[in-house]
Amino acid sequence: MADQGPCWQQIVIIGMGMIGGSLAAGIKTRHLAKTVTAWDKNPASLQQAQDAGVIDRAGESLADAVSGADTSSDLVILAVPIQAIAPTFQALHDIQTTDTLITDVSSVKSAIITAAREVFGKVPANLVPGHPIAGSEKSGFAAADSKLFEQHRVILTPVDNTARQAIDKVSSLWQKLGAEVVEMTPTHHDILLAQTSHLPHLLAYALVDTLSGQGDDLEVFQYAAGGFRDFSRIAASDPAMWRDIIRTNNKPVLKVLDRYLDEVRKIKHLIEQDDAEELEALFRRAKSARDHFSALTALDKE
Amino acid sequence: MADQGPCWQQIVIIGMGMIGGSLAAGIKTRHLAKTVTAWDKNPASLQQAQDAGVIDRAGESLADAVSGADTSSDLVILAVPIQAIAPTFQALHDIQTTDTLITDVSSVKSAIITAAREVFGKVPANLVPGHPIAGSEKSGFAAADSKLFEQHRVILTPVDNTARQAIDKVSSLWQKLGAEVVEMTPTHHDILLAQTSHLPHLLAYALVDTLSGQGDDLEVFQYAAGGFRDFSRIAASDPAMWRDIIRTNNKPVLKVLDRYLDEVRKIKHLIEQDDAEELEALFRRAKSARDHFSALTALDKE
Repeated sequence: MADQGPCWQQIVIIGMGMIGGSLAAGIKTRHLAKTVTAWDKNPASLQQAQDAGVIDRAGESLADAVSGADTSSDLVILAVPIQAIAPTFQALHDIQTTDTLITDVSSVKSAIITAAREVFGKVPANLVPGHPIAGSEKSGFAAADSKLFEQHRVILTPVDNTARQAIDKVSSLWQKLGAEVVEMTPTHHDILLAQTSHLPHLLAYALVDTLSGQGDDLEVFQYAAGGFRDFSRIAASDPAMWRDIIRTNNKPVLKVLDRYLDEVRKIKHLIEQDDAEELEALFRRAKSARDHFSALTALDKE
Repeated sequence: MADQGPCWQQIVIIGMGMIGGSLAAGIKTRHLAKTVTAWDKNPASLQQAQDAGVIDRAGESLADAVSGADTSSDLVILAVPIQAIAPTFQALHDIQTTDTLITDVSSVKSAIITAAREVFGKVPANLVPGHPIAGSEKSGFAAADSKLFEQHRVILTPVDNTARQAIDKVSSLWQKLGAEVVEMTPTHHDILLAQTSHLPHLLAYALVDTLSGQGDDLEVFQYAAGGFRDFSRIAASDPAMWRDIIRTNNKPVLKVLDRYLDEVRKIKHLIEQDDAEELEALFRRAKSARDHFSALTALDKE
């Protein structure tokens, strides 16, 4: 892709964790904005970003960071924990930046729409809720990576009121960072992510906690090559962040969790009854689905 | 390590699947035996092994394969599915190879001891039950890899009657293949593997089956980067093999499955009560255990 120079005047990133830092690094590396400004309530994260040279300016405050970022060539990206989204909307509202083009990266989307409606009175036309599916068990600016979003999906969840132009501009930024952008409703996003991300994290925490609480902890981890390692990796994820994601998306999570519990109880019953036929049929169905779709989606190459 | 030439006269491998094939390839590559003989009830697997040049001789039958492998410089390795162990013991018994040094690679050990006792009248002193922790979701000779066992653990589960010399000889073979050998009782092995391998596989099959049975299958797999991929990989494992492993090790599996179900129900309750504090405490405990032990065991490097 030919580099056509910066398409953005100023991009302001609120939050210099792994995602915010990766955005700054990716935008800087690819020269996608004339100025990258950042703010983080933790001065150390902001300092790390400055030292790494991925931002041009560190705001003195949230208000200072977003000051002047109110033209159609500016963008404010909220890369803060999900619990901090509503207060950040409030702060933006207080400093009258309603017309500013805003996007976010939160893992739950309905809650973002609700928070926006509560703070701004309606969902601003220039707010484009988004979610890059590029998490990892790592967190913090130290885990920032300019290539984090390459060949990963970004879900945008606009509402009826969202301006098409705003969606297209945010979409274009993600594409320039190497991501594939898809659109869906906030509700659909939250149900899908409850299944593919929130439930697996919850189950991984549950398994590691179950096993490490028993007998010789170290031994369980020494034999992790037997399959346990796949589960234990995501249990290294940030506990406070996942607490908030799961609380915020509790209804879809509880719904799929109930389905999963039913399935595991069914398997337990099959083992108790020593029902070889049904047990194999179930495993075979799972393997077929996985093999079929991994071929279609190149699951193992990611 | 200096190559001191073949230490074995003849190694006979029964079963040319991923593990048997990897053993043949590893032994051949490292010149650990003068002759590598194989037998598999599936002629195609045997042919593949011959074509790949990892065996010197394909037996006409099980009896033909093991004929002459009865000196202290010979070894018979059973790399057959767990359900085939008892019939194979019976076949070996019928052709009077009781004094032959025998080892196996099965995922459940108590059942091997029981089968040996039933067939031979007692556990032969020259039978060394073993289990390389080097599985993968792949199976069959096509997945054979001469380096499969390097830097992986192999568990040997001798009983009181097992000859020390036999244990040491089998241990030495695994070490020459790059593995780290540990010894434990069959019962301890089965409880440990129920936790680190059998339960994770069962949970992975359950999750893939739960999610793929709902709505647009493909979509779930497309967003697997959110955490689901870690679970779905092991659900690609051989269904018949895992059916038999879980049936054979049903008691330890059901015990840890009950503990896991209790833990997941506890988490469900915490979400329903919106108990942020306890939810975070549980996630934090799991992360601490994982971080602590992954540092000790170099979990991410494997």
